[in-house]
Amino acid sequence: MRVIFNEEMKAVADDLDRMAQDVRKAIKGAGEALLKSDVEAAQAVIDGDIEIDALELSIIDQCVRLLAKQTPVATDLRVVVSTLRLAATFERMGDLARHIAEAGRRSYPTSPLPEEAKPLFEQMQAFLNETADRLVTMLQDRDAKTAEQIIANDDTLDELHSKTFQLALSDEWTGTRQQLIDVVLLGRFLERLGDHSVSAARRVVYIVSGFDPSKEPSRDEDGAVE
Amino acid sequence: MRVIFNEEMKAVADDLDRMAQDVRKAIKGAGEALLKSDVEAAQAVIDGDIEIDALELSIIDQCVRLLAKQTPVATDLRVVVSTLRLAATFERMGDLARHIAEAGRRSYPTSPLPEEAKPLFEQMQAFLNETADRLVTMLQDRDAKTAEQIIANDDTLDELHSKTFQLALSDEWTGTRQQLIDVVLLGRFLERLGDHSVSAARRVVYIVSGFDPSKEPSRDEDGAVE
Repeated sequence: MRVIFNEEMKAVADDLDRMAQDVRKAIKGAGEALLKSDVEAAQAVIDGDIEIDALELSIIDQCVRLLAKQTPVATDLRVVVSTLRLAATFERMGDLARHIAEAGRRSYPTSPLPEEAKPLFEQMQAFLNETADRLVTMLQDRDAKTAEQIIANDDTLDELHSKTFQLALSDEWTGTRQQLIDVVLLGRFLERLGDHSVSAARRVVYIVSGFDPSKEPSRDEDGAVE
Repeated sequence: MRVIFNEEMKAVADDLDRMAQDVRKAIKGAGEALLKSDVEAAQAVIDGDIEIDALELSIIDQCVRLLAKQTPVATDLRVVVSTLRLAATFERMGDLARHIAEAGRRSYPTSPLPEEAKPLFEQMQAFLNETADRLVTMLQDRDAKTAEQIIANDDTLDELHSKTFQLALSDEWTGTRQQLIDVVLLGRFLERLGDHSVSAARRVVYIVSGFDPSKEPSRDEDGAVE
């Protein structure tokens, strides 16, 4: 029984790894779409989201079958339940990357961002590209250390996000109202990508250590209206 | 075994009903905070979110224990897995209502919205108040008909949400940049409350009928940058 569980769980873990890799590709592609007006990159992210969605459904099916047939307990059960939540998180990250890519495609060949906002968005994007690499490593190696880095670093993104509001309210701002709308929504999408990365990292810490950091009081990483 | 499963599942279902009721209270309170500058209502939503979070954790614990001890299969397993997802959805709705309440509290005693935006937000809020009532009925009665109404009606909210952007770009708009930021974020939070309601309704249809409407191509209700 145990051998079959491990074998089937391995197949699920492979799918989850692929999801993390697809999400990394989507995050990086969304950045190309947004910051370099790369319309092909935008299209690839939009098309690629279908695969991410399909992977989630496949993972749910496999997990439900595993639960029914193998009746895992203790650690195994923790892994299955956490896998379901990780898949849901990655699916959502794929959606957010797609929204960013769609904004890039819609405003092509110009950027949706006014010039003065680009440096902040470039910093946010660079941060998320690094986080995306960490997500893949974390998943492949079930590595709690990398997961903890993701959790610890999240403030950086929140600070950059706050600065987009400060910029929009400052004398430096030259953007149109449409650009302000885009800056607010795109900033929110990027920030949410960071939140979901933290939530995924917490799941991995839980799988590895059995300690659930989502039960700490700071669990809601979500930014309020600023 | 089966009797014990039903008894324990009944306790989980009661918690899920309470979550739906708490979410309804949060949505309505957020509306009072936003549209009537009711700072006590705002505080109640903010404080109440702790109970919603606690209910989710309690539901997760109960479901994991159920999976371990009772090894449900087929329909029962579907109910447990869907319950986990419903609890996650309601938890997120509590967060969104809290963000709206926080915006109301922050700008107290004035509204964060310019006068011309209020009618649209009142319509969005009235729509969500009705949806919140339906969520509670749907959960209590495991009623697929009510769930299907929620799914069918979602376009109304998306249209109102689009109109907030049109308004912000029109000559009618008199708001400051801060107000534009708030209109964009608050509109997004309200729209996401609608999306999560649809997602919860789809879960209930799945529990009741075994047919998973989330596998339909239209599954992503999320609004893009407009």
